[in-house]
Amino acid sequence: MKLKIKKDILSNKLDDVIKGLSTKNLIPILNCLKLELKKEGLYLTSTNNDISIKTFIQKEQIEEIEEEGTIVVYGKLFYEYIKKLPNETINLEELIENKLRIYTSSSLSDLNCNEKDDFPRLDFSVKKKPIKLNNDLFKNLVNKTIYAAANSEERPLLTGLNLQIKEDQLTIVATDSHRCATKTIKLNEKSETDVNIIIPAKNLTEFIKILENNVNEIEIHIFNNRVLFKIDELYFVSRLINGNFPDVSNLINKEKPILLEINMLDFFHALERTAILSREENKQTVHLAIDKNSFQLKSIIPEIGKVEETIEVKNNSDQQLEIAFSAKYMLDALRTLNSESILICLESATDSIIIKSKEEPEFIQLFQPIRTY
Amino acid sequence: MKLKIKKDILSNKLDDVIKGLSTKNLIPILNCLKLELKKEGLYLTSTNNDISIKTFIQKEQIEEIEEEGTIVVYGKLFYEYIKKLPNETINLEELIENKLRIYTSSSLSDLNCNEKDDFPRLDFSVKKKPIKLNNDLFKNLVNKTIYAAANSEERPLLTGLNLQIKEDQLTIVATDSHRCATKTIKLNEKSETDVNIIIPAKNLTEFIKILENNVNEIEIHIFNNRVLFKIDELYFVSRLINGNFPDVSNLINKEKPILLEINMLDFFHALERTAILSREENKQTVHLAIDKNSFQLKSIIPEIGKVEETIEVKNNSDQQLEIAFSAKYMLDALRTLNSESILICLESATDSIIIKSKEEPEFIQLFQPIRTY
Repeated sequence: MKLKIKKDILSNKLDDVIKGLSTKNLIPILNCLKLELKKEGLYLTSTNNDISIKTFIQKEQIEEIEEEGTIVVYGKLFYEYIKKLPNETINLEELIENKLRIYTSSSLSDLNCNEKDDFPRLDFSVKKKPIKLNNDLFKNLVNKTIYAAANSEERPLLTGLNLQIKEDQLTIVATDSHRCATKTIKLNEKSETDVNIIIPAKNLTEFIKILENNVNEIEIHIFNNRVLFKIDELYFVSRLINGNFPDVSNLINKEKPILLEINMLDFFHALERTAILSREENKQTVHLAIDKNSFQLKSIIPEIGKVEETIEVKNNSDQQLEIAFSAKYMLDALRTLNSESILICLESATDSIIIKSKEEPEFIQLFQPIRTY
Repeated sequence: MKLKIKKDILSNKLDDVIKGLSTKNLIPILNCLKLELKKEGLYLTSTNNDISIKTFIQKEQIEEIEEEGTIVVYGKLFYEYIKKLPNETINLEELIENKLRIYTSSSLSDLNCNEKDDFPRLDFSVKKKPIKLNNDLFKNLVNKTIYAAANSEERPLLTGLNLQIKEDQLTIVATDSHRCATKTIKLNEKSETDVNIIIPAKNLTEFIKILENNVNEIEIHIFNNRVLFKIDELYFVSRLINGNFPDVSNLINKEKPILLEINMLDFFHALERTAILSREENKQTVHLAIDKNSFQLKSIIPEIGKVEETIEVKNNSDQQLEIAFSAKYMLDALRTLNSESILICLESATDSIIIKSKEEPEFIQLFQPIRTY
């Protein structure tokens, strides 16, 4: 392998492909990048068994392709070294079998490389009719719901986001069994088949980072045990989680007798102040008392003191209600919204709390109240 | 105690005084702020036994002083609650003995307070003739040298910065015994007495943060076992460390036969690249080979590879030298400089390395090379 390439061109593509490297040191080959120089350009591949990424630099973007070839280089080192070079022409050359020389006018590095044949064979095949989706829409879908996915591996199913497609409706659902966030968007074309898959949330987090550097349409190719996202020349493959994701549609679509409309920022800041006198170990429990036209938030730690907040609210019912909930859950839900006012739907002190907004009716968040005695 | 005050005025003063609170929970009273309302204004005091801070809000900045009094409130809670209020008028009122009510139009908090008499009696007395110093100059002195102070308590003396004054020269020295940074400035007035004290580095770090919010001249008042800094209405007292700080003047002023002048950014980036192939556990050792007109940086990890950097340099001597040093120490030293080129003074592979710049000759940094065999 021998080529000349501008630093920034190589470095930008490395920014994407590096996200497929393993962060653990257990299997050395999963810490490696495969560089494959062919007459049409340079392919860059990484995998950590959970995610696989392939990207491509066309020959037009390469200054000189002198000799085709493949090399498997220790990814983190290679990336850091390239990143720190000035933006000039870089020479990459396989000196002897599995030894890569990288050099510019003033800097030179020789890196021992791994056996090419040890690098896993990866499947980046695509379907004929992928689902096509706007980049920003997909980013937004994931960013708004992902916080509600489970962090712990106790129930592996819930560490994933559920992606459902029915006709021209695409829905993402995340839940850790205490709370849930879901959003639906309309596709430009009807899908021929229904889809119901679970994608690990941490893999989607990596994919969303890659989306930040790209603007074009996403293609989603769904297989039995994996999903492939394609943007331009970049292929991102994630494994799927097997199982039946909980059906939350009944919870979400339930009509509630109390509907409150409240100024978002006033509520947010009042809640932050109330949370100061709540206990972490108690899930930051705060109390809400609703009367016909008043809305009072309260927290108390008897030895220390109390906070009380009175907020203006539009209440569509005459019902009174006292309910306790986690300030953290409510603040997390509010953070995903950027509307001026929000809607809170309630039924009783033991029934789930639903948060919506008028501007974004297809985005619904829900969490359980805390029972206090 | 009863008063009305605009949130921002109180909140800004709290930003300063809060830095004197203990971050440990061992002695509850050291987590408290003392608020003392007198007819001339509101005094705010904090102490953690290491630092004591007193500040003052004049009556002209207070909307209404209804009733003088003193209260000792749990500082972190009080601070967080005030910070999160909107910028409107806040009412502070001692409801009953040791119970503070804070309220605005929509928010109310009752906080249980501590016994006033339990709050330590603090000495904020000042000298008639303090040393006066420009705020920015002092910030700069501390910021440039503090990195070289010791982090570990093995030799408590070295966790402090040494402040020396002789006539109109003020010098700060920091060293952890492996490296050293020192800077001297000229005072506007000669000091009547010589000064040689050691101030805990972590206390200076807190003081420097307070300086960011203030622009006026600093007064330094030095006592036997403490130093008091005064800016406007703010008093900051730090304990001193007892002992004799090592005298580094011989090391620093030593003439060295090799003087290299080198472009700062080229050197910095070359060093960063070289450091990639150095080992953390080896203090990131890199090798430097100096010939008449060439200057080569090298690092090697035999199993992985090597990096070699060639840099242009002005060398005032004919001497050749090979020397090894910690890339981390050199990078730390370079980060404090913002000159276009730097000067490196060398003698032998075992003698200390001195870093200077033409623009800032009174700022000298030095560290020991690493002996390799």
